[in-house]
Amino acid sequence: MKKSKKSAARVGRLVTEHGVVNTPAFLPVGTQGAVKAISPRELLEVGSEIILSNTYHLYLRPGPELIAQAGGLHKFISWDKPILTDSGGFQVYSLAHNRKVTEEGVEFASHIDGTKHFFTPEKVVEVQQAFGSDILMPLDECVPYPCDRKLAEAAVRRTTKWAEISKQEAGSSKQKAALFGIIQGSTYQDLRKRSTEEIVALDFPGYAIGGLSVGEPQEIMFEMLEHIYNVIPEEAPRHLMGVGFPQDILGAIKYGMDLFDCVIPTRLARHGSFMTLKGKVSIRLARFEKDFSPIDPECDCYACRNFSKAYIRHLFWAREILAMQLLTIHNLRFYMRMLEKVRQEILAE
Amino acid sequence: MKKSKKSAARVGRLVTEHGVVNTPAFLPVGTQGAVKAISPRELLEVGSEIILSNTYHLYLRPGPELIAQAGGLHKFISWDKPILTDSGGFQVYSLAHNRKVTEEGVEFASHIDGTKHFFTPEKVVEVQQAFGSDILMPLDECVPYPCDRKLAEAAVRRTTKWAEISKQEAGSSKQKAALFGIIQGSTYQDLRKRSTEEIVALDFPGYAIGGLSVGEPQEIMFEMLEHIYNVIPEEAPRHLMGVGFPQDILGAIKYGMDLFDCVIPTRLARHGSFMTLKGKVSIRLARFEKDFSPIDPECDCYACRNFSKAYIRHLFWAREILAMQLLTIHNLRFYMRMLEKVRQEILAE
Repeated sequence: MKKSKKSAARVGRLVTEHGVVNTPAFLPVGTQGAVKAISPRELLEVGSEIILSNTYHLYLRPGPELIAQAGGLHKFISWDKPILTDSGGFQVYSLAHNRKVTEEGVEFASHIDGTKHFFTPEKVVEVQQAFGSDILMPLDECVPYPCDRKLAEAAVRRTTKWAEISKQEAGSSKQKAALFGIIQGSTYQDLRKRSTEEIVALDFPGYAIGGLSVGEPQEIMFEMLEHIYNVIPEEAPRHLMGVGFPQDILGAIKYGMDLFDCVIPTRLARHGSFMTLKGKVSIRLARFEKDFSPIDPECDCYACRNFSKAYIRHLFWAREILAMQLLTIHNLRFYMRMLEKVRQEILAE
Repeated sequence: MKKSKKSAARVGRLVTEHGVVNTPAFLPVGTQGAVKAISPRELLEVGSEIILSNTYHLYLRPGPELIAQAGGLHKFISWDKPILTDSGGFQVYSLAHNRKVTEEGVEFASHIDGTKHFFTPEKVVEVQQAFGSDILMPLDECVPYPCDRKLAEAAVRRTTKWAEISKQEAGSSKQKAALFGIIQGSTYQDLRKRSTEEIVALDFPGYAIGGLSVGEPQEIMFEMLEHIYNVIPEEAPRHLMGVGFPQDILGAIKYGMDLFDCVIPTRLARHGSFMTLKGKVSIRLARFEKDFSPIDPECDCYACRNFSKAYIRHLFWAREILAMQLLTIHNLRFYMRMLEKVRQEILAE
């Protein structure tokens, strides 16, 4: 690992059974076992070394049994590089219906067909083992922002308890997958610190910071990171879950964050926007009507090497799927190039 | 040109400024300047040597001026192999509103925004010249099926008249593009023959048969072809427009047809079906739920080499765009392989 001299930023290598991930890294999100509007070979081309998939979605459809029968998630989706699956905790909190949290786990109704399900820490590990994920996440309890202190404190307590159970469950497996610990604590400095200390005490090979980027201002997110990054063992990779916009990622890297995942580049692509360091720009704008230059002349992606803004704008207004495909390729390549540059800068610092 | 000894089928080479097309050939349809759900490099990969684009759509949006400013259609859409554009006649008849045919041309209202437009034979040639199409089609008059004889006869008369005007218009250009003649005549044997004789008398470098595959039984379509194929000069390529299902194409090849275009493989892909020689099969079927074999084990396309029916079925039910992308790649490759095989068979006959 190479550390920056200017900040807590660092460059590292995350080694898994399915290959090495150069960090800081961005994980495109393949919610349902596919990163939307892009094929696995194009994902490789834009430089993805790892993707994230959602346990909640894949558990509901097509289900862990089918994925195991297919030979595991990598084979099922034709992606033989690392896969990180999340815990499902965030989706249960944000998508599922009739959520009911108890000490044993969380009961919920599927957002697809209303069927009832019960996630326990044991079950969530088992499901991810059926997938054959390289990095697993333990069931955690997410809370909304802003959150009452008592609720946030109870969630921290349960998240630690479930992490302990998850570790035992995962430890009995012969799989070489890594189970990360998840840190909660809402936007309370002391709760974040307490959660970090409790989770670190359980000794995980990596740590995820959950429950941020859920509506709080960016400075509060950075404030939370500032108070915990030193508590996490230096050699362990740190995943800031669900983050984010380019400036969120660039800022968080300075607090020693290594892994990031977010639907922003792919979702905004489908909605007709391309990403820049300052944020999104809509390809629909009239000023691009006769702009025959690429989205970014310095970008080496398939979209920028072959197509103009005028053409992609035309495709978008004409509701052509190719518009989504090209913007997705560009936006993911934009994130990958941004992180390649950051890694070079840290190495030079 | 190599002719079959068993039928009127033949293998040939259509030479254009943008390359050679081996015939019989299938033209994927890029209505709005993009073949839906597939990128140009994937089109090359599946074996496409030529595509068809719709004059009506591109005229309305983004318009011939913008395409000319972009450096022509090939450059605008990043496809440097041959492009055939149709006349717009069929779309005016099937899509546009408030259609009014006169001796001078056809007035219509855009299906997009209701604006009024007037297509004359001269204008339609001019528009396609602005695109820089390799093969142009003259404005024709399409009629529905079934069609009153008087209407069909009037359409034949106008189609011939407009073909003559179009040829004069195209002849004054320095572009090396080929203007084909279009044959109409509905399902009346004598009108088909009359139209063929009149159009052939104008001496085009290629001929298109329009107004078939519009609802009539397959045997009537073949009956029409049987009565005209000998009237068309043998060395001229023959394009059976808008056809079709595999069995329509395979049958029509035996009547000396060389070029085919149809939205069937791409449209059915987006609706979740893969093509077979017998027709379409829905990937949604329950019997594919745990079918971990490819759509076609003998197919060499990206979809069949990497993904199972179970996975594509999952993607389709999960409404993932990748399902449409993979099925589109497979269906087009299926058509290309079918025609590669037909060409080999004809060469061996």
